[in-house]
Order: sequence, then structure tokens, then C-alpha cells
Amino acid sequence: MGKQGIRVAAKVSLDKPAAEQDCLHNRWHPDIPSYASIAPNDVVKIECVDWTGGQIGNNDSANDVRDVDLSKIHYLTGPFDIETAEPGDVLVVEIQDVQPMEEQPWGFTGVFAKSNGGGFLDEMYPEAAKAIWDFEGIFCSSRHIPGVRFAGLIHPGILGCAPSAEILETWNKREAELVSTHAHLDRVVAELPNAKNVHAGSASDEVREKIGREGARTIPGRPENGGNCDIKNLSRGSKVFLPVHVKGAKFSVGDLHFSQGDGEISFCGAIEMAGVITLKFSVMKNGIAQLGMKSPIYIPGPVEPQFGPGRYIYFEGFSVDENGKQHYLDATVAYRQTCLRVIEYLRRYGYSDYQIYLLLSCAPIQGHVAGIVDVPNVCLTIGLPIDIFGFDISPHLLAEKRDLGACAYAN
Amino acid sequence: MGKQGIRVAAKVSLDKPAAEQDCLHNRWHPDIPSYASIAPNDVVKIECVDWTGGQIGNNDSANDVRDVDLSKIHYLTGPFDIETAEPGDVLVVEIQDVQPMEEQPWGFTGVFAKSNGGGFLDEMYPEAAKAIWDFEGIFCSSRHIPGVRFAGLIHPGILGCAPSAEILETWNKREAELVSTHAHLDRVVAELPNAKNVHAGSASDEVREKIGREGARTIPGRPENGGNCDIKNLSRGSKVFLPVHVKGAKFSVGDLHFSQGDGEISFCGAIEMAGVITLKFSVMKNGIAQLGMKSPIYIPGPVEPQFGPGRYIYFEGFSVDENGKQHYLDATVAYRQTCLRVIEYLRRYGYSDYQIYLLLSCAPIQGHVAGIVDVPNVCLTIGLPIDIFGFDISPHLLAEKRDLGACAYAN
Amino acid sequence: MGKQGIRVAAKVSLDKPAAEQDCLHNRWHPDIPSYASIAPNDVVKIECVDWTGGQIGNNDSANDVRDVDLSKIHYLTGPFDIETAEPGDVLVVEIQDVQPMEEQPWGFTGVFAKSNGGGFLDEMYPEAAKAIWDFEGIFCSSRHIPGVRFAGLIHPGILGCAPSAEILETWNKREAELVSTHAHLDRVVAELPNAKNVHAGSASDEVREKIGREGARTIPGRPENGGNCDIKNLSRGSKVFLPVHVKGAKFSVGDLHFSQGDGEISFCGAIEMAGVITLKFSVMKNGIAQLGMKSPIYIPGPVEPQFGPGRYIYFEGFSVDENGKQHYLDATVAYRQTCLRVIEYLRRYGYSDYQIYLLLSCAPIQGHVAGIVDVPNVCLTIGLPIDIFGFDISPHLLAEKRDLGACAYAN
Amino acid sequence: MGKQGIRVAAKVSLDKPAAEQDCLHNRWHPDIPSYASIAPNDVVKIECVDWTGGQIGNNDSANDVRDVDLSKIHYLTGPFDIETAEPGDVLVVEIQDVQPMEEQPWGFTGVFAKSNGGGFLDEMYPEAAKAIWDFEGIFCSSRHIPGVRFAGLIHPGILGCAPSAEILETWNKREAELVSTHAHLDRVVAELPNAKNVHAGSASDEVREKIGREGARTIPGRPENGGNCDIKNLSRGSKVFLPVHVKGAKFSVGDLHFSQGDGEISFCGAIEMAGVITLKFSVMKNGIAQLGMKSPIYIPGPVEPQFGPGRYIYFEGFSVDENGKQHYLDATVAYRQTCLRVIEYLRRYGYSDYQIYLLLSCAPIQGHVAGIVDVPNVCLTIGLPIDIFGFDISPHLLAEKRDLGACAYAN
Repeated sequence: MGKQGIRVAAKVSLDKPAAEQDCLHNRWHPDIPSYASIAPNDVVKIECVDWTGGQIGNNDSANDVRDVDLSKIHYLTGPFDIETAEPGDVLVVEIQDVQPMEEQPWGFTGVFAKSNGGGFLDEMYPEAAKAIWDFEGIFCSSRHIPGVRFAGLIHPGILGCAPSAEILETWNKREAELVSTHAHLDRVVAELPNAKNVHAGSASDEVREKIGREGARTIPGRPENGGNCDIKNLSRGSKVFLPVHVKGAKFSVGDLHFSQGDGEISFCGAIEMAGVITLKFSVMKNGIAQLGMKSPIYIPGPVEPQFGPGRYIYFEGFSVDENGKQHYLDATVAYRQTCLRVIEYLRRYGYSDYQIYLLLSCAPIQGHVAGIVDVPNVCLTIGLPIDIFGFDISPHLLAEKRDLGACAYAN
Repeated sequence: MGKQGIRVAAKVSLDKPAAEQDCLHNRWHPDIPSYASIAPNDVVKIECVDWTGGQIGNNDSANDVRDVDLSKIHYLTGPFDIETAEPGDVLVVEIQDVQPMEEQPWGFTGVFAKSNGGGFLDEMYPEAAKAIWDFEGIFCSSRHIPGVRFAGLIHPGILGCAPSAEILETWNKREAELVSTHAHLDRVVAELPNAKNVHAGSASDEVREKIGREGARTIPGRPENGGNCDIKNLSRGSKVFLPVHVKGAKFSVGDLHFSQGDGEISFCGAIEMAGVITLKFSVMKNGIAQLGMKSPIYIPGPVEPQFGPGRYIYFEGFSVDENGKQHYLDATVAYRQTCLRVIEYLRRYGYSDYQIYLLLSCAPIQGHVAGIVDVPNVCLTIGLPIDIFGFDISPHLLAEKRDLGACAYAN
Repeated sequence: MGKQGIRVAAKVSLDKPAAEQDCLHNRWHPDIPSYASIAPNDVVKIECVDWTGGQIGNNDSANDVRDVDLSKIHYLTGPFDIETAEPGDVLVVEIQDVQPMEEQPWGFTGVFAKSNGGGFLDEMYPEAAKAIWDFEGIFCSSRHIPGVRFAGLIHPGILGCAPSAEILETWNKREAELVSTHAHLDRVVAELPNAKNVHAGSASDEVREKIGREGARTIPGRPENGGNCDIKNLSRGSKVFLPVHVKGAKFSVGDLHFSQGDGEISFCGAIEMAGVITLKFSVMKNGIAQLGMKSPIYIPGPVEPQFGPGRYIYFEGFSVDENGKQHYLDATVAYRQTCLRVIEYLRRYGYSDYQIYLLLSCAPIQGHVAGIVDVPNVCLTIGLPIDIFGFDISPHLLAEKRDLGACAYAN
Repeated sequence: MGKQGIRVAAKVSLDKPAAEQDCLHNRWHPDIPSYASIAPNDVVKIECVDWTGGQIGNNDSANDVRDVDLSKIHYLTGPFDIETAEPGDVLVVEIQDVQPMEEQPWGFTGVFAKSNGGGFLDEMYPEAAKAIWDFEGIFCSSRHIPGVRFAGLIHPGILGCAPSAEILETWNKREAELVSTHAHLDRVVAELPNAKNVHAGSASDEVREKIGREGARTIPGRPENGGNCDIKNLSRGSKVFLPVHVKGAKFSVGDLHFSQGDGEISFCGAIEMAGVITLKFSVMKNGIAQLGMKSPIYIPGPVEPQFGPGRYIYFEGFSVDENGKQHYLDATVAYRQTCLRVIEYLRRYGYSDYQIYLLLSCAPIQGHVAGIVDVPNVCLTIGLPIDIFGFDISPHLLAEKRDLGACAYAN
């Protein structure tokens, strides 16, 4: 009558290159072979490597962050066929737990170099930087950012079902158009299909080549399947409703985060980790039509860390940029300004700007749209939790400069 | 030894035109005469008219919303001289309470016509619409949007100190530049100084004329003084830190909201009301330098309505617009998409799109920045509280169409 | 179409003796004449005097507390006939708001003398003491207990419907039996009917005499009608389900509290105040049978002050009394011990024991049953919110004695 | 530079009798040999068997519960010497995580027979009963109580330091006195030292015999060291401050609970499980005097499941017992009444009383002291979370009887 441990639907190795593991892949494509099949209402554990597939080490140099090979990422585990799922259905996924690997109780946050990956504030902070986070049960702390410690709101950065061939074509077309019209920006505005380092699980050479030509990169989230949404409260206990576009759904998951701040601003910004996620699937037949659904929806779990509303300092940012230029209702500009306001506030305590940049990326900050209609300014806010700091950062107290060490840099 | 009721620092009349009341004004300008003086640590009540100065009636037609005169708004109460405050200081304002006027227990939410004011979704919803909300203690409900009822997170949409002459000049310059460079948009992208209907309290004709020429409109929030930030959790119990730019600070407040959703998307989107705010002031000498402050910060109060994290349905929106066009990391586009996802979801129950547009503007929805770095898409989310509805809107249940009446329209 | 202010169903005077006001009464009895009638779904405001009917003054002496006349209390407002309510029904009461009187923004907390009223810790603290609390919007603070300030979880200490004659007889019989069997305790163990100072609204002399003979005192809560339950989270937004025992329900309310700690340990322990409560009634026909109800139930409102679970210090108490005697599963003994543990903790900062006793009575402490089955000990806990203090009371910091003034004493 | 998995300070076997494992013991005594030594600030994992040492099976009969051998329980893991800890110090223990054993994802709740162990409601419910709970990540559900599912607030029921010889003597004396004066109750009012089945880790026969004679049972919590407090929010992230009475502290922990309701009313009432706890220790030198501490205190962690205050139904209980007898300020009687009120409410849906009794023991109900001074009645409340049920239990809806199966009984 008893019950054994929960079934592990996919096991990864942290010692073997990600590119050699059949349960992993790093592109979105309907032809990636299913790794395994899962029955509705079955509870399974799925192991995941960190999003870079092990490129980043637990050390005090950001060379690995600076030199990261972005053609390889993100490695996802799957795809899984969910029995009975068909196009038009909705796959309901309950995230029952997320845990780091028992043998690897640490994660990393990186600021990518502007020249390789970049991030939300790369105009101001173009260098690579890194912080290693040690996990102590539900808490984490970093030797690279002393004075803070917090409970993780642990979650997968990426989950979704495979696109159909039609959807994939739409993606490639609209993103190519963006690239073609934004050459003047002199930035990578989108990552188009790239055959280099493509990994498609156990696909044959021929299929892998096709996927290299067509497969959508896993970097952006997309409305049709969710994907890399990086939503911090899509955490333990959440139930997510995903549109199904191919037979069996071909569900994949990866990019586990021990914690993330709203925006994940440094790009490699969450506390990235390898780990294991416990999931339960069910299928809502004809759910897309029934829910009138164009993009995933979810119901968060009940166990977020709670600080109390009065235990945040909120910062305001507006769509006037750092050069004093007025933008028209630009929420992206406003959020960047809000981030800068927090940096200015925290640097008074002795943190370097890079340390704060890393911290804002991964600590449980609340990024809210406040007002988005009062021309020409939008206002966005960031709530910074007071209680993650080991000293009192209340504004009514004089800020005292301390020795707060340094994050890791590239040499 | 006893203590009488709390002093009322400014009293408004709901029967007299706002333009005739000396304690009101509708422009930002350092020369607007101070209405009264308040000592630090004094607790005072300040009465406010609704932001339109009474242009909107408790009736079933949106004609008044369609025809609103936007040259008049927003009427603020003040300015108040706070004793000892000087440029470079920070004015600390504790919001001890906000209440509707006892004799006027109702408020309104409006969708402005695209041709007069507009709003966040005016491309899809160009007509004027209105909902009247009745207050029952901490709750509100509307005959125009049956089936919902919620506790208000009551707050002032606007508070701030007067700009200095230099700051005012900066504002006018940068906003004029925006107007001049965005003529192609064929929209009002910013409201420049406008002598029409200027009200400057008890100012002489000469001063009023100057203010008409130079005075900044109260419509947008701005980084230098906050102003119309429309921040929903700047509510009861909050403490806000405002930079002081002129002697005495010249603090003003108005645009009281019974409730608002993140974004206040329909522009006249909060539940707008006349009311009274209880404030306590203190002055942090040299606070701007001490806090490294460029924009206001605040600490929210402890009494937000709480639904529990698992009592929200979250919707995802991306920077691919409604025509399928891919935008580059545009959070404004993404938030609009998120709003549309909620409308699609709720219309299954029998609400009209305009009813939902009104509801999203004023109900306590949570608008979050999720991921803002995964090129080319940003992802923003909206959390819709399940418990404000009188019927169960959970996604696992079949949506049943009901008779949910209609909001007010213009004829 | 507009709506005027909400109807006031009963108005009290703070200048006239409570005993002379027809809308007040201070006994439970079915024959107290109804003061007014209220229709279901009508929203009304009901004014209340403080529970002592004005015996306590805003001053620095506890003489009034020491000398309080307990034959007069509690004054309730009502009774109100709720149309259509009949015995067997359940009266559903929504508490839409509670506010202090605008002209009296203060309240009091008293420790009664052991010889006149007593309290939970009167063996250790037999003297009278008092603290006056000033209200600043949602917050309160006291010149008699410096260093604390908190938002009130405002609520009525008493509400309920009149008992039937049969229920009244049950009450009088079982309480008289208790008195007769507990003479050895040398304490007032229950207050039996007492003709002295009986007030029965507009009752005729004859009826008043009857009520004096039979009327149950309002001091205890009782299972059959609720009454003086002193439940701190029966606050704004709550919906309470009350059994109806007489035609029209004869609903009464009073004993308003600005705030209270679990247990209200000093008896006059909440922050007692005069005020106004906004209510909406509805009737659930045959509700008692339908709900299987023997005692009232309620659903709290959504707006409690929130501190975050990690912002409390929790103290443990067991059923071993202060003399080292082991009691058998006695939760009352255990709760007293828990209270003493908090007093010992807080006196290290310079507070007197009486100040802390007052504070525990009225501040939002959480009193929980932890384990009640592990013979012979029960364990009860008290959670003390850290954030109501103006200095850091965390246990890892050295406690520093401060000058924290004194509460009011009798001379 | 990397970091391996966290050190396991004690490993248990689920296949070997608890009595044969050196890292376990089932009495409190200073002479139980230390199992291992732990340095301050070291993070360790400690494995624990379930409190009965494996007497209860995952099956559908309550025979094992009926026949449980109470002389064996509770098995604790330890004791551990914490380096530098000495009498007079305070041991600060951070609970960084608690998890069930990976290979045993289930737990049990039992109602003990009145004749063997009993429980809070054994006068009404004297038979043995059982429910098995399956864990799905952070959630649990039971085939014996269909229709409910909730996230666990996981915690150790027992932790504490060894008593000194003097304290042990005090315990034995005062509990023996209770037994001698309560013979008339015809119940086990306390478990005195009992040589039968004593287990003292690796103690020699001689020492084990001594411990059999003198060792305090682990059943009750006690003020001097905490022990079996069964505090539901002493969960992940909590920091507990324990008085140290012997050199090295001799810390022990056990009785892990996946979830528990306030009171743990059925005695074997939590969801009992084997599992692993992650702890970090530090020592506050001379902490007992510094904190004025007589009993442990703690600060809860930040990650409790949150339902929102308005998502509970609260029940009221008073100190009038089920026979109509009035008790004097008896909180134990009142809490029992409150429990009965919930049973009456929930049985309307088709649950048996035993199912509800089991549920109230282990689900996250909130048991509060409301008023404890209004002679002769105290009022205690229980908050029952609405959202743990799969159907709507709101009081305004008609309760519909369903087929809700049965819990396990003894045959």
C-alpha cells in the first residue's frame, strides 16, 4: 500500500557536458524528439542544469561570465509528451516544488559585458561582474555582496510547450523584421536562429541541422508559448495554464532560479542554479478556446516570503532619461530610471554600483507599473525589502559607509 | 488636558466652483501664493475636491466624461508652507488617513474619448464611458459593473512640493522638445502651459497671468517633485519623502482615489472622489544630499487589503503588439498586451470590453515587470484578484455568460 | 440620481449622561424596547459611547479607573429591529467601517484595581493604571507609553442579538450556579443581574425594574449570542453571522475598540473609545438550522495591518504557574505565563510592568494555542510585533534601558 | 573554491528499529551521551524518524494507532554538543529547512484511543482513527479525507537542550505531585519516568538504567527547555532562542510535522513524518540573563502559506461546556467548544466527525485567544482556511452533503 519516492522523469549529470545529454535541448522546435512520456495526474521530478549548462564556476573571477558562449543557452529539460494533449488544449502544470541540487548548494548572478550579452543598464555598467550565492536551506547569501540575506522565491525561469511549425515561422519572421529595421541601434535586438552549438536532444544529424536553421532561440519569452518569462512569483505551488500547439504538448522546462527581482535586470540576473522541479500535469481539452487564451496565465502558490507592506522602501522612476530627455510614455525608460534611483540610494552604504546592480537583479524587489497614462510621463516603482539587509537602511537614519567588499570582476 | 478634533488646514466646498476657491490651484508654479502655514509635527486635515473640480455627475450618462474640460484639471489643495523647510531639505509627509467626504459617499471612473484625453487603450476603445461607484465603508461597488465589490486602497493621486523657477524651466523645455519632435504621432504627447482656465488660488491677476504662461500642467508626474504619480500603495500609513525646491516647500495635494489599479489605465481611471486627507509633516534638513535623492521615495503603510498570493490570476503580456509586430524591449507595448489578455478573459462572463477597461483601471490589480532583458521581448504581468468578484472566475471552471448590465456611455 | 450621506440610525451625545439617552442600554434582555427599525440591505451608521459611558477622562490620573462604577457598564447602542428577522434565522452583519468620533480623537486603556474589576494579572498587578492614546488617522500613540506607535485594527468589542426569555433564564441559572460553587475563590467569578444603574433605553419603570431583576450583564460573551467577545480581527470588512432568538433580532452594538491585543488582558484592556460603526444587515432565513450553528461565526475583513510573519517575537508559556506548580492542561494558566514572559522581556528596555501590562492589552499581539494535548502541559504563544516599537527590540541586540516615562496611576 | 553538499550530522535508517540507532533517544536527561559535536555557524542536516519510531504504517487500518506503544515515544535525534555553549548561555538555532525523507513522501495523523493516549476530544471521540497524507512537493492530501489539500507549514514538533540534573529533579517532583493530587480524574494526567523501552543512544547499561529511573518523558513541552511545544509557525526560516543548562547544550530535535493545526488536538495530530532538518547554531554567551529568559522565544520565518485574512471562517467557543455547565475563565474548555463548533459546521458536507477531528489537528487552523477577562467566560476562536477545500464552504451557500469517504478505523 505504501508509496515510494516520486518518479524522476529526467535525470541530468552535472559532470557531463550539457550538449551530450539526451534529455536537454537549447532551441524551440516541434521536431525535437520527445525525451519521455508523462501521464496526466502523474507527479514527476525533472532535473535541470543551470541555464548556461555549467559555464559559470563557483570562484571569484567574472571571466567566465564575460566569456560566456550565448549560442549554447538556455538548456532546457525535455521535451516531454503529455499523454492525451493535443493542439487547442491547455496544459495545466502545477509546480509542486523546486529545489537546488543537493550536491550543489550554490548559484550565481552575473552582469554580462555589454559586448557579450549586455543587460538593462549596460550603457552605464558595461563590464562583466559576478556574485556567487550560497544556499542555507531557504536562505541565500553571497560573499560578494555582504550584508544581505534572504529567502528565495524559487522558480523556473522557463517553461512552455513546443511551437507548431506555423508559430515558429511567425516568430522567425517577426523577429527577423525587427532585426532588419533596427540595425541603427548597433545592438543585438534579437537572436535569430543560429546553427552553432544547437542541441536537440537525441535528434538525428539531419533533424538537428533543420533545427539549427529554424529553431527559435530560448532567450526571449513569447506570447504564444510563454517560454523565458522570468516571472518571480511563478514559484512553488503555482498552477500555470499553457497553450498546446503540437500533439503531446512537448513540454520543456529549465533556467531554474533560486530568487529573482522583478525585471531580472542584469540578464543573467536571477540566482541561477541547477536543480530539480516537481510537477504535476493535467490537460484541459479545448482549453485555448474555452479560456479565450492568447498567452499563458497562472495562479501563484501560497508561500511567498512576506515582509509586510510597510517593510519596503519604494522608489519612483519616470520616462525622463538619464540625459534629461523626455520620452513619451516609455515604461522601459522609466523602469531603468527607477533602478538607478535604488543604486544611488544604496551606494551610500558602501556598496559598489555593480554589487547593487547584481542585487537588484536577484533580490525579491517589487517592480510595479504605477501610472502609465499621464502624458508624457509614466511612473514605475520598485519596492526594496528592508529586511533583506543586516543593517537598517531606513531613510530617516543617516547612511553610514561600511566595508562591503566587492563582487567578482573579470581581469 | 483633553484634545479637540484635528485641525482642518483647508476646507473646500462641493457647491462652489473650484475656480472660485482660494485654497485650490491647477498648475505647478513657485509663485502660487501659499494658502496656509503648517508647523512640523502638526497633524492636519486637508480637504480636496475631485480632480475635475466637480465636472462629473452621479448619473448614467458619460456625456460629462466625453466633454470634460481638461484645461481645468487637476485641482490641488494648497500650497502650504511647511515651517522651517528650505530648498535642499526633504519634506517627510505621513499620510495618516484618507476618507471620502461624508456627504458624498461615491466616486467615478471614466474612459475619456480618444478625441478628448484618451487613455491607454484608446486605439481599441475610443469612446467615452463611465462607472459610478458607491462607497459602503471600506468597500465600493458600482451599478455599472455588477458582480464586483472590493475594499479600497485609498490614496492621493497627487502630492508634491512646488518646483523652483529653474526646475520649472527645465520641465517646460524638455516637454516642448518632445512635442516638437513627435508631431507625427498625431496625438497630444504632452500638455504644455496653457493660460486657459488657469487657477492660482488667491494670486493677483498679474501673477495668474504669469502662471498661465509658465505654469506646468498637473497631468504628468515628474521626477523632480513626484506630483501625479498615481501610485496605488501610497495609501494610509505611508510616509513619503519629497524633495524641497522652494522656501516653505509649498506642498500641494489632490486627486484623491478610493482605489486604483496599477497603471490607472483609462486615465480618469481610479475611483475619483472628493475627500479629506490627514497628514503630518516633518522636515529632514539637507535631506536631498543625505538621501542622494533625485525623485521621491516612500514607505507604504501597513494596511493594504490582502488577498493571499494564491488568490490572483496572473496574465502575461509581451512586446509583440496587437498587429503581430515585434517591438524591442518595449514595456509599454507589453503592458497594453497584458491588459488586453485580461479583457479577453473577463468578457467570457458577459462583461463588455468597456466595463472591463473601467474595472482594470480602478480595481486593485497588480501590474508587475517580470522580465525586461530577454531580447526582444519584455514580459509584464497583471494579477487580477479573484475575490473581488461575486462569482468564481477560476480558470478551471467553465465561464458562464451572465447578464452584467452596462456601463454609462455618451449619447 | 445622486446619493446623500449614509443614514445615522442612532446618534449619541458625548455631553449628556449615557443613562439619559434612549438609544443606549446596559443589560441583555428581550424586553428592552427597540430603538429603531432597519431594513435588510440598508447601510446605516450607529454611534456608540465608550463602554463606561464616559467615566474615564483624558488626564494623567488613574483615579477614574480605580473608582469606575461597574454596575453601569457596558452601554450598548440599540436594540434595533431588523425587518423580517425571526427566531431561528441568522442575522448577517457586515461591518463596513468603524471610526472614532471626529471630535474625540483619543481613547484609553485601563488596568482595573484588583478590588474593583481586576484583570488577568491582578495577582501580580493589583493597582489601577491608565494610558491615554491619541489617534492620528489610522495610528495611535500614548504619552503614557512612549516608544510605541501602531495602526489600529479597529472593531466593536460587543455585538449580538437579544436573548429569548428561555436563553436568559439559562444564563442566569448557570452563572448563579458558578457563583454558588466558587465562593472559596474569594473573587467575583460572575456578575449576576443587578438592579443598580440598570439602563433599558426608553423602557417604562415597570419594565426597567423587571430588566434590573432579570437582565444579564453585558460583561461576558456567551455562546448563544456572542456579545462581549472582544475579538480583535472582527474588524472592518468582517461579516458576522449571529443567531436570532427574538422577533426582529433586537441587535445591539457597542464597546468600540481602536485596537486590542489577543486576550484583552487588563479587562479595560483595549483602546476604548466612543465612535461610529457602519453596518449593513441581511437575514438568512432558518439560518441556525442550516448552519448547524450554536455560536456566532464570522469572516474577517481583508484589511488587517500586516507585519510579515518574521516581524514578530514569539514567547512561549506553559501550564506551570508562577509558583512552580504544575497544572493539568490549563490554557488559562499557560496564557498568563506567556504574558509574564513578555513583561520580563520588555522591562529590560525601561518600561514599568504596568506600562507593559497596558500595552499587551491593547497592541496587536497574536495569542495562539500551540499545543493543548501534551499532558500535563499546554503551550500557548504570544507574538509581539517588532515594528510597533520606535527602537529595535530584536533579541540579538543588547537591551538598553531608556527613560520611558510612566503610565497614569491612582493617587 | 566550490562547496559540496551540506554535512549530515546524524543519519537515521527507516529500516532499522529506532531503539537500535545510536543517534536517537527518547528521554530528557543530562547523561545521555552526546552523539556528535557541531561548531557554531556550521550548517548541518539532521535526520529524524517519525515520533513513534516507525510504529504507524501507510495502510487503511488504525489498529497500529490504537495499539501504539507510548513508552517508546518520542524518539529524538541527538543530543549534539554545540561547541562553546555553557550553562547560562542561549543557543540560537536557525531552522533553515525541513523536508520529508525523499524515499518516504507521506505522513500520518492519528486519533489515539481514549484508553491508550487519548486526545483533546476523547470524551466524545474515544476510538482510534487515522489518515495517511501523501506529499506532492509543498502540498499534501489524504485518501482518508477527500476534498482537502494544502501546503504544509513544515516544522519540528520538538527541539530543546538537555535539562540539568536540578531542572530534571524539579520536573519530576512537580509532575509527580500533579499525579498524586489528580487521581480522581481517572486519566493519565502526566507520564512520569518509565524504565520500559527507554532508549538513551549509546549509553552504557548502567547509565541507561539511571535514565530509565530519572529521565523525563518527551511528551510535554516544559517552560525550562521548550521541548515538545508543537508550535506550527516554528517553521522554515525561524530562529529560536533556547536556554542552555548543561555544558555543550546537548541539543536534540525530532517529531517533525509536515503540517499542524493550532492545538494539535488529536495528540498524534500533526501530519507526522520522518524527515531531515537543516540547522545553523550560534551561541549567545550569558544570554539567559541578558534576555531575562525563563522559556524559549523565537522569531518565525518569512514563508508561511498565506490565505488572506478574509479567506478564513472563524468560529467562537466559550467556557460553557458541552453539558451546559459554566466554567470560570477556563480557556481549555473554551477551545474544546470552539473545536466542536467547527465539527458541527463541517459535518454538514458529509465528513464524519472523526475525519474532521483529524483535519483540525493537522490543517493550518488559527487558534486564537480572543477575550480572557470577561468573567466568567473566555472566548477562543478558530480560523478555518476556506481555500484548503476543493469545494466552497462559505456560510452563505447551502451546504450540500457529498460522499467524502472515510478515515481509517481500528477493527
